[in-house]
Amino acid sequence: MTTVVAVETPRAIASEWLRRFGEALERHDPERAADLFIAEGWWRDLLAFTWDLRTFHGAKAIGAGLGRTLATAAPRDFQLEQGKEPALTGSDASRTVEALYRFETNLARGRGFLRLVPAEDGSWKAWTLLTAMEELKGHEEHLGARRPKGVAHGEQRGRRNWLDQRVHETALIIEKNDRIGDNWRTRYHSLVLHDPVWYDHLPYLPFPSHWPVFTPKDKLAAWFESYAAALELNVWTKTTFAGGEYDEATGRWTVRVRRADAGNGGTPRILHPRHIVLATGMSGVPNMPLIPDANQFEGAIEHSSAHKGGQPVTGKHAIVVGCCNSGHDIAQSLYEQGADVTMVQRSSTYVMTSANGIKVLFAGTYEEGGPPVDDADLIFASIPYPLLAVFHRQATTAIAELDQELLRGLEKAGFKLDYGDDGSGIFLKYLRRGGGYYIDVGCASLIAEGKITIKQGVEIERFTPKGVVYTDGSTQPADVVVLATGFKNMRESARALLGDRVADRCSPVWGLDEEGELRTMWRRSGQPGLWFMGGNLHQCRHYSKFLALQIKGIEEGLLEA
Amino acid sequence: MTTVVAVETPRAIASEWLRRFGEALERHDPERAADLFIAEGWWRDLLAFTWDLRTFHGAKAIGAGLGRTLATAAPRDFQLEQGKEPALTGSDASRTVEALYRFETNLARGRGFLRLVPAEDGSWKAWTLLTAMEELKGHEEHLGARRPKGVAHGEQRGRRNWLDQRVHETALIIEKNDRIGDNWRTRYHSLVLHDPVWYDHLPYLPFPSHWPVFTPKDKLAAWFESYAAALELNVWTKTTFAGGEYDEATGRWTVRVRRADAGNGGTPRILHPRHIVLATGMSGVPNMPLIPDANQFEGAIEHSSAHKGGQPVTGKHAIVVGCCNSGHDIAQSLYEQGADVTMVQRSSTYVMTSANGIKVLFAGTYEEGGPPVDDADLIFASIPYPLLAVFHRQATTAIAELDQELLRGLEKAGFKLDYGDDGSGIFLKYLRRGGGYYIDVGCASLIAEGKITIKQGVEIERFTPKGVVYTDGSTQPADVVVLATGFKNMRESARALLGDRVADRCSPVWGLDEEGELRTMWRRSGQPGLWFMGGNLHQCRHYSKFLALQIKGIEEGLLEA
Repeated sequence: MTTVVAVETPRAIASEWLRRFGEALERHDPERAADLFIAEGWWRDLLAFTWDLRTFHGAKAIGAGLGRTLATAAPRDFQLEQGKEPALTGSDASRTVEALYRFETNLARGRGFLRLVPAEDGSWKAWTLLTAMEELKGHEEHLGARRPKGVAHGEQRGRRNWLDQRVHETALIIEKNDRIGDNWRTRYHSLVLHDPVWYDHLPYLPFPSHWPVFTPKDKLAAWFESYAAALELNVWTKTTFAGGEYDEATGRWTVRVRRADAGNGGTPRILHPRHIVLATGMSGVPNMPLIPDANQFEGAIEHSSAHKGGQPVTGKHAIVVGCCNSGHDIAQSLYEQGADVTMVQRSSTYVMTSANGIKVLFAGTYEEGGPPVDDADLIFASIPYPLLAVFHRQATTAIAELDQELLRGLEKAGFKLDYGDDGSGIFLKYLRRGGGYYIDVGCASLIAEGKITIKQGVEIERFTPKGVVYTDGSTQPADVVVLATGFKNMRESARALLGDRVADRCSPVWGLDEEGELRTMWRRSGQPGLWFMGGNLHQCRHYSKFLALQIKGIEEGLLEA
Repeated sequence: MTTVVAVETPRAIASEWLRRFGEALERHDPERAADLFIAEGWWRDLLAFTWDLRTFHGAKAIGAGLGRTLATAAPRDFQLEQGKEPALTGSDASRTVEALYRFETNLARGRGFLRLVPAEDGSWKAWTLLTAMEELKGHEEHLGARRPKGVAHGEQRGRRNWLDQRVHETALIIEKNDRIGDNWRTRYHSLVLHDPVWYDHLPYLPFPSHWPVFTPKDKLAAWFESYAAALELNVWTKTTFAGGEYDEATGRWTVRVRRADAGNGGTPRILHPRHIVLATGMSGVPNMPLIPDANQFEGAIEHSSAHKGGQPVTGKHAIVVGCCNSGHDIAQSLYEQGADVTMVQRSSTYVMTSANGIKVLFAGTYEEGGPPVDDADLIFASIPYPLLAVFHRQATTAIAELDQELLRGLEKAGFKLDYGDDGSGIFLKYLRRGGGYYIDVGCASLIAEGKITIKQGVEIERFTPKGVVYTDGSTQPADVVVLATGFKNMRESARALLGDRVADRCSPVWGLDEEGELRTMWRRSGQPGLWFMGGNLHQCRHYSKFLALQIKGIEEGLLEA
């Protein structure tokens, strides 16, 4: 016989908090709901309450945010997620109860993640609360128990088969390349993803368990091609976008594309979509500095996006301008293929090794044996970016500690390190400016060991026939100059494709707004019917659904266009 | 405060049985181990103890089987599988404790499934025990924590990328068609799988959750193509097998293939594999009855495997010979496209409707929300086929009860029904003779309603220019005759590809042996280095690994060639 004493379990704590929160919301009492948060608490909402991606900081802002949305959203039925046990983490003062939960609103079903901490009055209050729309009621995805049957059993005169029937497409993907995945295939020879597989899954069809930790570019390209076939995506390859205008009256675009399905110039086609999603990449339009006398230079000048690499270049002099991921990768590859390589570092760079960075940053979320990727995405999204910066200051210090020998070597070699504006390292740098870091996979050691030379704090002032002159007056011979100088803001992709009028209506894209949400990505752009999609694979996976839900909401009249 | 009284839980019962079983095996006491089974108990082993697919029935046979294998296999460490709770099913006299478990042998790690029932002496004894090899120690698959890294970080002079490196292939797939999946694409227009998605997953990459319940042929073909790309299978398409001989001395084949990669006739290639796996399909070589005066017939005569369908055939007279799945599907399609259709039923057919058959036969294993497919495969495999026949007699009666109205209609229309030799229905018919049934998806109603005519108990005696004469002397006009007359035994595929000498060395393929195991499939064929692979998608998924483990065992010297 065993005796069990009932204790205040994480399940009981989280369950009770949800009950009280739900009760306050159902009574339309935002102040009482806000009182369930600590004073410095956070609420992040992904569409469920606000139909936008929003972060509210502090009980007052949370109360105001709830007050503006409760009447229309009518959130209710807050329940712990079945089969997911709430957890107690930390100890003593840092004790935290974490729980996945579900809820409903008038329009949707939602999922969320909750972090509770002990308050001064002895109760448990919310430190962070995520509310995320999962599906629109009546417009659920056809998954699992809702999957299609695939065939109509029984008599059907003049039956058509699956292939004959695939005509009712609601989304069309325009791809300028010959094959799906060519945007990866054509990149530099040594390109392998710097993010690990657990972080990179695509929606619906996760990578199988034999997939490598780091995906080589050609393998990723092949996966995209298989993925499109498996999901029956409607893709027109060899098709270029040749401009378009938005008609406010009809709420439709007129879009001109040229489809290379016949003849030399291809077939011009006019389309009238209600929405355009620009998924041309965060790295879409190359940023090419105009350097004087480039026409005199007898060697090759390439932007990193056009660099091929992978060929022996023994004895050649190579200069790589730019010290982020591509710059380092290309420099390493040129060195490995026999070149004498100099990297030009114009400002400073955050560097962490792949092994230590992944160990510290992804532990508990995106790792072998970690939570299901949909849960990991909620857990990760539940930390608003301003709070993530706080977490990551600590993580960045821990990584730097592990990497200290390498980092000292880099500095000794003249490389200028930074750790982000506030010491928060890689991810916030990525969110704030889309780059500025190197996830080291070998090049940092080459620099520290002097095998690759660093030219710090200068730019190329002008070219000579056989080399370059730097802004410090020094000169250097060169056979090839690779400009790993980044890409223009995605708004410039909109400008190139849709003109100034549309681009000027759009808010700036990427970078954090005053709440700490990414600007314009996966949300209203300022131009009705135009959406921006991009970022790393993790972001594309998690946020593509929120973008799709907004379009679906508009199309079903649940949300203003 | 709560009080808990310890009870005999399913976990405790299964755990204790495994402990006693493991103890008996470690003491090399097969009699004591056999005494843990009921007198009529079953032990099925998939390689783990016997390096073969074997079924032992009765405590005596089990003891003898264990006695022959214990010394070399040295099975040990029997443990309940973590995270899988043993279950108590049934009630009173039919109470059964079911549990997934793990174990090890000298060479391998294994998984198994156990069914315990209360014995007369009050103890729990095994009714069925499955022992299945999971992986060879030291030769584990590179999955999950063993996945490859995908790239070598750090300096690597003359680095080659993933695409450059893909040269060390150990397995080559020869495909005669132009594209992977053409064997499905080219089949009859209305073909949709009769088995549901939960039963059909391929290894490593399950169908995504939006996949239809029933997969149309072209969609399956596209999946195979994507699958081969995602798993980087090494496939030569447009390549025909032109014969081969086995050299006993070297243990290698000399194989001639013709690869259509250049010129008209293709390039002849000589290969020297150690193993050939014939995966040419249970339905490989068409069985074409030779019917007199076929050359006089002015219409079309097609085997079902060559029938295309899907075109309007209004007013045409069609005869379909054969009343199994293909025959019914093709008859239904011809009717739906406007033909006047007669089906010739030579003997009798087992018929169940798709909906009721799936409901009764797959409940608890292969269904939406069912166990993970790897677990379902173990649970299904844990019932030896002779015992499955007992289970299925009951299930077949239950299905017939649900389908009774349709079945009465069929009989009234002159259709001859059967329920298998022993009333065990579809699956045992499939195992014993590879067919003889129709999973109704609409044709049975067409027959019952008289929209399709049945000609029962006859064969076509001879053709006339405009039709046929049956063996009962009656005649019928015909524009098209489809022979859905099945396929020859897979041994005939071996004969066609490798000649009489090899085929004659092979044991008969398919059908059950005296133990109740399938003959020659996924196990020694009688011809060293030749293996037969086939069956439905479920069987291909589950048994492909056992075939691969045998080849790996031979190649690593763990098993005699």
